Order: sequence, then structure tokens, then C-alpha cells
Amino acid sequence: MSGFPFTVTATDGAARTGRLSTPRGEIRTPSFMPVGTQATVKTMYPEQVRALGADIVLANTYHLMLRPGAERVSRLGGLHRFMHWPYPILTDSGGFQVMSLARLRKIDADGVSFRSHIDGSQHRLTPERSIEIQLLLDSDIVMQLDECLALPAVPAEVERAMRLSLAWGERSKAAFNAAERKALFGIVQGGDVPTLRLKSAEGLVQIGFDGYAVGGLAVGEPQATMLQILDTTVPALPTDKPHYLMGVGTPDDILESIARGIDMFDCVLPTRAGRHGVAYTRFGKLNMKNARHADDPKPLNEESACPAARDYSRGYIHHLVKAGEALGAMLLTWNNLAYYQTLMAEARAAIAAGRFADHVAATKEEWTQGGDG
Amino acid sequence: MSGFPFTVTATDGAARTGRLSTPRGEIRTPSFMPVGTQATVKTMYPEQVRALGADIVLANTYHLMLRPGAERVSRLGGLHRFMHWPYPILTDSGGFQVMSLARLRKIDADGVSFRSHIDGSQHRLTPERSIEIQLLLDSDIVMQLDECLALPAVPAEVERAMRLSLAWGERSKAAFNAAERKALFGIVQGGDVPTLRLKSAEGLVQIGFDGYAVGGLAVGEPQATMLQILDTTVPALPTDKPHYLMGVGTPDDILESIARGIDMFDCVLPTRAGRHGVAYTRFGKLNMKNARHADDPKPLNEESACPAARDYSRGYIHHLVKAGEALGAMLLTWNNLAYYQTLMAEARAAIAAGRFADHVAATKEEWTQGGDG
Repeated sequence: MSGFPFTVTATDGAARTGRLSTPRGEIRTPSFMPVGTQATVKTMYPEQVRALGADIVLANTYHLMLRPGAERVSRLGGLHRFMHWPYPILTDSGGFQVMSLARLRKIDADGVSFRSHIDGSQHRLTPERSIEIQLLLDSDIVMQLDECLALPAVPAEVERAMRLSLAWGERSKAAFNAAERKALFGIVQGGDVPTLRLKSAEGLVQIGFDGYAVGGLAVGEPQATMLQILDTTVPALPTDKPHYLMGVGTPDDILESIARGIDMFDCVLPTRAGRHGVAYTRFGKLNMKNARHADDPKPLNEESACPAARDYSRGYIHHLVKAGEALGAMLLTWNNLAYYQTLMAEARAAIAAGRFADHVAATKEEWTQGGDG
Repeated sequence: MSGFPFTVTATDGAARTGRLSTPRGEIRTPSFMPVGTQATVKTMYPEQVRALGADIVLANTYHLMLRPGAERVSRLGGLHRFMHWPYPILTDSGGFQVMSLARLRKIDADGVSFRSHIDGSQHRLTPERSIEIQLLLDSDIVMQLDECLALPAVPAEVERAMRLSLAWGERSKAAFNAAERKALFGIVQGGDVPTLRLKSAEGLVQIGFDGYAVGGLAVGEPQATMLQILDTTVPALPTDKPHYLMGVGTPDDILESIARGIDMFDCVLPTRAGRHGVAYTRFGKLNMKNARHADDPKPLNEESACPAARDYSRGYIHHLVKAGEALGAMLLTWNNLAYYQTLMAEARAAIAAGRFADHVAATKEEWTQGGDG
């Protein structure tokens, strides 16, 4: 049997909190998954990621199939041993990054051919090969291959990609073959067209998955469009399965999506921003490159339990960022992931207490203080 | 009163072990000081550096005077608070790096003028300004300004630089003015000319310092030349003061120099090598970029107490280095500094046990096993 027990322990409006129980550990929802693209959450030791409260991380099939190769990871004992992370891992299907990173890609009904962005070598990804790779990696949550379009796109093109993704979902399920102690998630496509989103959701539910992702959002459309699509789509998903919004997002995106019934998130924002000198704090976002921080003895947040937020002055972090020192990216990434995990923990507590709407309003109010509170 | 109590607790031939007791903590000798050029030991959290057994780190006056500036560090509470390292810090004088990094430098009897390698701005360093900067940084062990030549150099030029360094030593001592709770070290110069080294040492002893450094070595000469100079120089230094060999070196250099009476070392080698894919292990040096590691499930050293050496496969580290992931440099630097601290701890124990020569022979024998033992 595939799939994991999912228990919703409290709801508050459309928002829900609960737990997804996997053999490698429990995932408290709503959950944020730090991104470990190349089998490492950039600039972080895995123990740090865990200590911040991450129950699961995401790794990218596209990157890992090219380097070091799925067969090699398998020979080395699977992704968990490889990256020294014995807890749950979700892998994407590779499709999204083939579209955004690979060269000379050519999509057909059967799959997609492309050249590696690293060395130009020729590769092919089909629904079956994507599942095979993810099982070689020994991923806990496996994603179906889909076709994700950039928005805006014309409706006929959106419909074609949605129907192709549905067909690939069916083939993915057959290839996955109810793998033991693993889960397979389908992906809703349909761009910004509500009727297509509903058709996609219905089609996926008919196939039957262990969880349902909403894909093809946060790809260039305004936040209002994304939230409208969630308003349409999420009610069409089974309430007894986890709902995962792929690649999202800002703290604001996350709170608004939780309010619409999303349970799982991943995004490179906290890690990428950390490498670009940006700090997320409960009082807003700070650009640590800015000279106004140079003489500031205050830490990012003296009340944080995260050493990166508590033990180093803004003046020091400014210096590290300006000097191009690795410790700057290390501290800011650590701080940002700590902030994201705090955001999720507080959201879970607020939903459990039936005060999520008030909590969101208060959190947004704090953000306006500009990081100097 | 300046200077710190220095106790030699055991000797074995010319090798000695002991402790230098500073208000910020005890320095067990022989001691290796990790290099924190820009107020950070690259890719390391200060707590990690401490946990490996480092009693003291080195920071570079040249870099810090340019960015973020000594006065700024002082306003932010001094270097210890700035870099979150409450233990002893040694700062160099800035002279060596002016010679190796700065642009359009012009040396005269009074000091050296140069342009910053960062932004071309004009600066001047004199013996007095170097001391002033190091006191602003709140360094525990302050170094005199000296002139360090690259080898080979003609004897007349070596003698000129040696005499200038002596004169600057005298001015440094006057400027230091026996600063409370701090120590000032003089620097022996004289290139590869034994008679000049002896004159330099005699001159410094006459001035009187809290410790004596040997400078101007490991600047291009063969190891045999360096060791010959130590054979000449160290016996001319007071036995009741610490002896510091600047900028050295490989594990082999360090053991050979300990055997000649050196107590303190600093070198960028373990940290720089870590960023270039090289691992130091008790069984020799490994180039982790080499494809032969790609499928190797063994850790760098499963018996090490350092997580970087123990918890990650060589195959994974190879992948991280090839993929340019920060964690590769983080793990290798951590491993290398762990190895260097183990090297020092074992040397101290061997001297205390009166078996240092045997220990050196056994250690060198292990290195020949090629990292695969």
C-alpha cells in the first residue's frame, strides 16, 4: 500500500492543521519544505535545518539526475544517506526545471528530450523515467511528471498542457505501482483558467493520488490571480489528502494560501534571499547590503531562538555581506529558514486555537514595522 | 603591565609544551591559530572553531583597517564582540599584507603608503598607526610592524629590511606603552642569512617583548632553508617567552618546527585547501575533485569526532565540490581545521610524554597511506 495517514486535527475556515505520518517521521501541516536542490539546502548543515523545525525537505530530480545521477545516489544508499538527512524527502518530477533550465528541450506526447545545462549531454524524461528516478533516489513523496507553462499563456495552450499533464498523471500512477512506504502526488494544472483547473482536479481525483499539488502558479502572475485560482481549485480536492502548493512563496503568499486550505509549501526564497544579503524578520525584510546597517549593534532579532538572528550584530552581517564572506550567506539563510519555520509553527498554533484570521492580520501588521522593531 | 604568564610544562629535546594564560582564556602550546582574515574563519561558525579546540584565532589588520575600518569595529565593541569570538585573538601588523596585496605601495623609513586593493583609496601604515589599529580592534596579542621580503633577496636588501624592522619594533613598543591585559610580540627578520637572523633576535631581546615571532619564512624558500633558519634563530630567543612562526604551514612544517622549539602557528592552508576541494586526513591529503571518490561510500575518517569527517561519504563530498555547493567548502574546512587541531593536541601529548620524535615518525608514516587507510 502506498500513501501516508493524514490527520486534520483542527480547521479554522478553510485553513487546516494536522499531520502526515510517514515512516521517516511526522510532517506537521501546514509545513514549509526547505529546498535542497542538489541534495543540500544551500549553506546549511542538515542538523541545522532539522533543529529549526523542518520535518521534510525537497530535492530536485532534474539536478540530481544530471549530477551525480540517480543510479549513483542509489548505489550510495539513497538520498537520505547521501545528504545525511534521515527524515522525509519530497522530490519534484524534474519537469518544471527541464522547462526553466535545460537547453534545446523538445516536448512530445510521450515525454521531453533536452540537453543538460551543465555539459550539454542529451537526456530524456518520461512519466515512467521520472518515477523510476525518484524511486532510485528513494524519495518519500514522489511527484508526477507534468507540463508547467509560464503565465500568461493562451487558453488553448493551457488546455493542451493540462490534458497532457493528466495523461502523464495516469502513466505516473501506473509506473509508481503503489510503491510501499511512499506517496505519489498528482499535480493540478490549468493556468489561470478556473474551468480548466476544475477539469484538471476532477481528472486527478478520478485517477486517485496520495496527495494533490497545485502547480503552475507563482510563475509570473499577480498574487490576486494565484489566490483566485486557489479559491477555485482547493475546494475540488479531497479534504482527507494533503494539498501542496508548489514553489510558493513569500510569507504573505503562504499565509494567504494556508487560509485557502493549502497544507504544504516549498520555495527557494528564504535560501536564495539569504545568499543575496536579504534577511526576513518578523518585522519585515531587511537588505543587509544597505549602508544604514554598518554601525548597527542590534542583532536581527534578539528574541529569536536562532543563533544567527540573536548572536551577531547587523553591523557584522553587513560587513560579511559586503566582504563576500561565506558566513554572511550562512547566517542569513539560517535566519531566514528559522523565520519561515516560525511562521509555520505560529500558523499551526493559530489554526488550532481558532484565531487564524486575527493571527494573519497581526502578523502583517508587524511586517510593516520595517525590520527595525 | 603587559604580557601574559607563559608556563612551559614539559620539554622534549627542543620541543616544548605549556600554556599562555590570557584574560580571555588559556592558549595551550604548541598552538595552531585558524586564520580569520576578515573577522571570520571562512565558512565556519565561531562555535565550531572553538569546539575543535582552537584557543585563539588570528585576524588581519590590513583587511580590517580597510573594511569595515578599525574605528568602526571599536564602536561596535571590539573584534571579539564583532565576530562573536570571546576568546583570545592575535592580529598581525598589516605589514605583510600591504606587501602582498596593496597597490602602489611605497615604503620609507617612517612607514608605508599604499592604495587599497578593494577601492584604490589611499592609506598609510606606520608602526604607531599599526599599534593604534590593533588596540582599536582590542586584539589580545599585538604584532609589531615589520618589513617582510620575499625570498630569494640579496643580503644587503635583507639587512636593510631587518634593521628597519628592528627600528619599527622599538617604535612599536613605545606606542604599545605596555597596554594592560595585552601582549606585544616582536618579529625576527633577516631572510635566509643566519648572521642577520641572530642580529635581529639580539636586537629584539634588547628591546624586550612579551613574545617573539619568526617572520619572513615560508615565502618561497625550500623547507630545508626554513628549518635551518629556525635551528639558528630559536636558540637565540628567550626560553620563558612564546615563540611564534608566522604563516606556517603544512602539517609536516608544523611538526618539524615544533621539534625546533616553536610554540605558535597560523596558516591559511587548512581553510584555503578546504575551499579548493582538498581534505587533510591522518592518512594524507585527498583531492576530493578526483573522480575516484564519486562512488566511495566511506567517510573521510570514520574514527574522527568531527561530524564533517565522520558523517558524510566521500561520494557526497565529491558531488558537493563538483556542483560548487557551499556545503562542500564548509565540510572540508571543518574537517581540515579538525585535523590541524588534532595534530596539535597529539603533539602536546607526545611532548608531555617524552616521545615526540617517535610520534613525528609514526605520524609521517601514516601520511604515506594516501588518505585511503
